[in-house]
Amino acid sequence: MVDHLARAVRVARGLEPADLLIRGARLVDVLTQQLRPADVAIVGDRIVAVGESVSLARARETIEAAGRYVAPGFIDAHVHIESSMVAPGRFADAVLPHGTTTVVSDPHEIANVLGVEGVRWMLAASEGLDLSVLMMAPACVPASPLETAGARLAASDLMTLVAHPRVLGLAEMMNYPGVLAGDPVELAKLVAFSGRPIDGHAPGVLGDDLQAYLAAGVVSDHECLTAGEAREKVAGGMMVFLREATNARNLLDVLPAVTRENARRFAFCTDDRVPGELLDDGSIDALVRMAIGAGLDPLLAITLATLNPAEHYGLRDRGAIAPGRRADLVLFEDLADVRPSLVIAGGRVVARDGERVGGGAVAPGGLRPTMDVAWRDSLQLRRDGDRVRAIGLIADQLITTSETVALKPAPTAPGVAGPEPDADLLRLSVIERHRHTGNVGQGFVTGFGLRAGALASSVAHDSHNIVVAAADDGDALIAARASADLGGGLVVAAGGEVRATVALPLAGLLADRPPREVADDLARAEAVAAELGCHLGAPFMALSFLALPVIPSLKLTDHGLVDVDAFALTDVFV
Amino acid sequence: MVDHLARAVRVARGLEPADLLIRGARLVDVLTQQLRPADVAIVGDRIVAVGESVSLARARETIEAAGRYVAPGFIDAHVHIESSMVAPGRFADAVLPHGTTTVVSDPHEIANVLGVEGVRWMLAASEGLDLSVLMMAPACVPASPLETAGARLAASDLMTLVAHPRVLGLAEMMNYPGVLAGDPVELAKLVAFSGRPIDGHAPGVLGDDLQAYLAAGVVSDHECLTAGEAREKVAGGMMVFLREATNARNLLDVLPAVTRENARRFAFCTDDRVPGELLDDGSIDALVRMAIGAGLDPLLAITLATLNPAEHYGLRDRGAIAPGRRADLVLFEDLADVRPSLVIAGGRVVARDGERVGGGAVAPGGLRPTMDVAWRDSLQLRRDGDRVRAIGLIADQLITTSETVALKPAPTAPGVAGPEPDADLLRLSVIERHRHTGNVGQGFVTGFGLRAGALASSVAHDSHNIVVAAADDGDALIAARASADLGGGLVVAAGGEVRATVALPLAGLLADRPPREVADDLARAEAVAAELGCHLGAPFMALSFLALPVIPSLKLTDHGLVDVDAFALTDVFV
Repeated sequence: MVDHLARAVRVARGLEPADLLIRGARLVDVLTQQLRPADVAIVGDRIVAVGESVSLARARETIEAAGRYVAPGFIDAHVHIESSMVAPGRFADAVLPHGTTTVVSDPHEIANVLGVEGVRWMLAASEGLDLSVLMMAPACVPASPLETAGARLAASDLMTLVAHPRVLGLAEMMNYPGVLAGDPVELAKLVAFSGRPIDGHAPGVLGDDLQAYLAAGVVSDHECLTAGEAREKVAGGMMVFLREATNARNLLDVLPAVTRENARRFAFCTDDRVPGELLDDGSIDALVRMAIGAGLDPLLAITLATLNPAEHYGLRDRGAIAPGRRADLVLFEDLADVRPSLVIAGGRVVARDGERVGGGAVAPGGLRPTMDVAWRDSLQLRRDGDRVRAIGLIADQLITTSETVALKPAPTAPGVAGPEPDADLLRLSVIERHRHTGNVGQGFVTGFGLRAGALASSVAHDSHNIVVAAADDGDALIAARASADLGGGLVVAAGGEVRATVALPLAGLLADRPPREVADDLARAEAVAAELGCHLGAPFMALSFLALPVIPSLKLTDHGLVDVDAFALTDVFV
Repeated sequence: MVDHLARAVRVARGLEPADLLIRGARLVDVLTQQLRPADVAIVGDRIVAVGESVSLARARETIEAAGRYVAPGFIDAHVHIESSMVAPGRFADAVLPHGTTTVVSDPHEIANVLGVEGVRWMLAASEGLDLSVLMMAPACVPASPLETAGARLAASDLMTLVAHPRVLGLAEMMNYPGVLAGDPVELAKLVAFSGRPIDGHAPGVLGDDLQAYLAAGVVSDHECLTAGEAREKVAGGMMVFLREATNARNLLDVLPAVTRENARRFAFCTDDRVPGELLDDGSIDALVRMAIGAGLDPLLAITLATLNPAEHYGLRDRGAIAPGRRADLVLFEDLADVRPSLVIAGGRVVARDGERVGGGAVAPGGLRPTMDVAWRDSLQLRRDGDRVRAIGLIADQLITTSETVALKPAPTAPGVAGPEPDADLLRLSVIERHRHTGNVGQGFVTGFGLRAGALASSVAHDSHNIVVAAADDGDALIAARASADLGGGLVVAAGGEVRATVALPLAGLLADRPPREVADDLARAEAVAAELGCHLGAPFMALSFLALPVIPSLKLTDHGLVDVDAFALTDVFV
């Protein structure tokens, strides 16, 4: 380290050539909010000099920026890597070409399957990547007591993660009702991470409740739905992360809250993005473009993507282009339409013209199988009445309605309450897959439009049991078993056979394959679902949230149907 | 802790009365750069709710702000407590009435006397005070190899301090020539504190040298002399601390560098202030007033005094008035002339109308005596030529000139090169006092104007040997011995007797007495010096810097006369 510093000093003084020199760039200086011409000299993974000095002109390798802009690498302030359906090394391959060089991730999904072991695997799988993967300890595992997850994390479990140099703090404290009620289990987690960043998750929580949530130690929020909500949260001391996720598009609604005076209190996050969207729309670069397109000063937009999250998380070594900081750099041509043409991370070129240079890091082995189902012969539901409570799916939303639907007088099979695809009434099942309990939650869902077959997924927030929506009880079992046979994954079955799969054998959540392959598999599965009549844009995304009993109004877990408003189990038959 | 959080939550929700409520204030919101009416509810040492909600109206104790402004407590980004000449508890009594509730201090002076033991004593002496005393590990002890200090701190010594919860990082790396030369001893210190804040000290260091200094890991500077220097340092990634010290008044020169766009990269520091100035002019409040008086937006000025240093040092729990943060608050009447009328620290009223409430914390014992001099019979200098190099004092500056002065043909005593007060040529001696070496550096100084007697001081930067400026060789010895007999201190002797003293028995640097008493003692000693002909405003301050061999041009240490430009010893006689 001393030798490295000594060399950095010599290079900065012009006594030795740099390892890499970016020459003739227009520097996006987030520290002064100015553009200025500059060269950037790099030694190892660090910037050692920035300026127009001739002393910098020598280097082992020179990149002619030729007037391109150079900005600090982008930072995603809050992301669940698992939503990309690929292992961290593959996720890096997806986001680096978009200029995202650092992510603050919450390994919340794998923690629900594998607990601390899962988090440690994510840390191992993200060690030494070109992408800096920092983590927050998952705060709410499981999401509720009304389901069977693979693990339960108490404050004492989370504390075992604190010493890791890439664990920054506590991830989103979703159980805000618990915090507001003074639940000692939740408060113990906040106490355990006192003095570190504690991310929040408080959709619509305002007024006294917001003050109380803040008083408990939470310092950020990414769930704002309106500019007014963001203004109140910023005034309360929160950092507000503007979010644009596949399933939660809030950026444009919240952006009007950002002013030149309060801008340092905002950052960007993607939260959850499916692989195809990461590849084709982008990562934080997409949010930067969107914000600039909506009128935000480009320098401010880039500051929200760089310096602000770095300062918020105490990442002293990044967020600006300055000597001593990490050489994480993004070059692009157009300040009004930021599309990285060259990305440097840790001093190395990691992407060029949207294509990853290098990459393909293989995930470490050692992750145990997680599909441990005590199978039943059938997923048929015994008919126990004529009217059922059905989950009413709303396209592109996580909330559902609770519908009461009359079953047809003539059942599909005697004594069976079956799906009625011609009435868009599908059977929904959630099959416990962690502990061989044999639990199966049974219910109905409307809004899929599926005319035949079944969709199954081992991605089912947050406990990630197998969720199946079916127009046919037989196909339901075939799809669910196929998901388990893959070690986890997404499956479309119809006519008694498997028609499409997306294998996710790592914890039933992730594939260790190129993200494009997984995105293509998913697109094919969605196409098959569409052929079967499903009219949803992202049917598996929709399916995966039907098992999350902390979002209103009616959801299904392996324990059964959950009336979320009452936060209690309820009967299928009315 | 969980119980405390639970109560904080209940109070914020209006379910229980707060411990303290500030009602009807005008909140200086540094997060949004706005003023707004607000109540502030406090539980223990924390803010739990801020707003206009009626839920906050109940409290065990209510302070009616009646429209006064309430701002976060001020933070001094860099201060040597030792310059106040009082122990940390007494220093707190001086600065809290001025609204400074947090200081980031460099216990650099005591470290030169007592090494790590001295730093640990400062930590013990500042434990549990109403003032938050945070520390940086002293980077350059001793300042040079051309003197005898009481201690030498290597990286390994500094590392023993890192684990202390109030040690934030590495204090000002003054040896920038060493860093630029790649000195492994200095670089090892920077490596040891990698990832933590590392304060800089680089007067006039710009261009390639600045880039190199930054590349080594330094992140701040408080030595800017001009706005242009500050602009270059901020663009280089530094936080710049605007300084207004007793002996270095830079604020107004540097202030024009601050713009609305780059303001987050600036903070305030006092660096060195003598007790009288702390009491009468102030602490950070004085800098806030000065900056506002010079035209800085008051909200920005207060942000430089609060949020900015908090973010720079990673102090998540302060810097703004928001739930979950420390209840460090300043109330005042006039935004154009910020004079705290009420100061709250850690939820308690600690000062009212400029007067300390409580205080008087007594320093812990256990500090060993530090005056260990091998005395000589006389401080007379043997005449060894007719012309001498004399240090040319420049009023109110730390730099000196090097003068060549012809001695009178007729000596005061045979064979002695004595003082010639009628020609303003005083004898200067530096007497080693740490290790009983018997070292005495001998020389001459012009510019004091002293016509009779002698001034002695055990405060003599940075090694803090005894420095004596004398119009009479006999009085020189009397003053020096008196300083040692006090256990350290400032002394004026004349006519064969001690005429005034400021006892500083703690390491020869500090008194454990009320700061006003020490300030009065110092004022009396200065008055006696003035009676003896000295025309300097702060003669002891001037004297204390004559032994610092890292500031040009000619200085005196216990090793002898130092040509600072050549960084080598030189002869008194030309």
